[in-house]
Amino acid sequence: MLVVKIGGGSGIQIAPTVTDVTTLIRAGGKAVLVHGASGETNLLAERLGKPPRFVTSVSGLESRYTDRETLEIFEMAYCGKGNKALVEAFQTLGINAVGLSGLDGRIFEGKRKDTITIFDGGKRKVLRGDYTGKVERVNLGLVTLLLDHGYLPVLCPPAASYEGEAVNVDGDTAAAMLAAALKADDFLMLSNVPGLLRDIADRDSLIARIPAEAIEDFMPLAQGRMKRKLMAAAIALQGGVGRVILAPANVAQPVASALEGRGTVIG
Amino acid sequence: MLVVKIGGGSGIQIAPTVTDVTTLIRAGGKAVLVHGASGETNLLAERLGKPPRFVTSVSGLESRYTDRETLEIFEMAYCGKGNKALVEAFQTLGINAVGLSGLDGRIFEGKRKDTITIFDGGKRKVLRGDYTGKVERVNLGLVTLLLDHGYLPVLCPPAASYEGEAVNVDGDTAAAMLAAALKADDFLMLSNVPGLLRDIADRDSLIARIPAEAIEDFMPLAQGRMKRKLMAAAIALQGGVGRVILAPANVAQPVASALEGRGTVIG
Repeated sequence: MLVVKIGGGSGIQIAPTVTDVTTLIRAGGKAVLVHGASGETNLLAERLGKPPRFVTSVSGLESRYTDRETLEIFEMAYCGKGNKALVEAFQTLGINAVGLSGLDGRIFEGKRKDTITIFDGGKRKVLRGDYTGKVERVNLGLVTLLLDHGYLPVLCPPAASYEGEAVNVDGDTAAAMLAAALKADDFLMLSNVPGLLRDIADRDSLIARIPAEAIEDFMPLAQGRMKRKLMAAAIALQGGVGRVILAPANVAQPVASALEGRGTVIG
Repeated sequence: MLVVKIGGGSGIQIAPTVTDVTTLIRAGGKAVLVHGASGETNLLAERLGKPPRFVTSVSGLESRYTDRETLEIFEMAYCGKGNKALVEAFQTLGINAVGLSGLDGRIFEGKRKDTITIFDGGKRKVLRGDYTGKVERVNLGLVTLLLDHGYLPVLCPPAASYEGEAVNVDGDTAAAMLAAALKADDFLMLSNVPGLLRDIADRDSLIARIPAEAIEDFMPLAQGRMKRKLMAAAIALQGGVGRVILAPANVAQPVASALEGRGTVIG
């Protein structure tokens, strides 16, 4: 079993991953795809006159402040444009994909945090009406049902809160929780970077291998999104996933080459 | 088995239908929901500076000209905002809804018409690059799988072309084809009109009953969207559906009261 998370940053191409996952499935492999759409969400939010607002919580993690209007924009970009583009790409190749959010069948479930405490100009400030949350539980029923009947699940945020509301959650973490629940052999996180770099300005400074027990040691090197990816890798490995691989999406055969060890292999 | 189509025209409320379908399911009933989002699509298209373009084919049917950009807007409104709002509303009531488009699992399949012939200022004109189509086949596999495992399917366009592309299709026709495939006892089309009116300006001129064999006789009374609804009713009845009911969505208990005979009962 393979779980592939493909990032949604601007410039990330889906075609190489779709082709490669198709080859794998035709050869008898089982896979689940999880995707992001943050670049498209930002673009759409700008075009609709509701520019994205990123906030850093007092605990130091950056997230998108998601009021009700932002949540709807988020759903349009993720569940509408992003998800259906992937499903369509697979369907044109004859793979019977099924696109779902974490809200559908409550695949991803967790607590909504409707307030977030941030530092704003040095002062603590509480933002209310936030529709963000954290995936705490994966309900595998629907995913397993689809896999057992030959469908390819293509998943994305939002998740469901315990009260059934849609909540914006981190896609890498959700995918890691899923990989753990499925006890996947491999969990790939494909994005627009080659993997974890020792020096973010030098694309040749790739760290090729991180032993599972050493993830914490490498955390100081991780900046921005990469910090969440390493945390997601730790979740997946602790949950019983064989290997986690951080690799680039915009290359030929991104899946096959990651499985051969391209990128940063953790575990 | 009940199939409910709820229209997506501006002003149509989803809450009464969601509450009513929830009551029905809790009482042991089986249902599938199909929805539109045309009002939201128009609004989004306007806001994105890509105003909707409706064209009338030489055969006299009106449709939305759907180039690639319009298709993406359509998917954002239907699969993103509209579909997830319904799924969320059901999840908050404890109903395990699963939102899908016709592209997912190829539930709705048909031929893409990439050119459409219209009259433009009295002249015949061929528009190319159109992503519209017509549902010709319903693949029940995924819908049945979900129903058998206690999920509520919440479906919407687009459909899949035979080549796997996303195509904009008429939601009423798709829902009618689905109702026929499921051999539904009842097929409800809920929208912002009380049913078929003898005089469109007089909401008290409701036609309460149309025998199945007399649909054609009533076609001249149908204007705009209503024409497609009567055609959809005919498809459903010919396919073995027990009754088709055209009824209002913005009333208390729209589903229960339609099943008791409110609106226009056909069949």
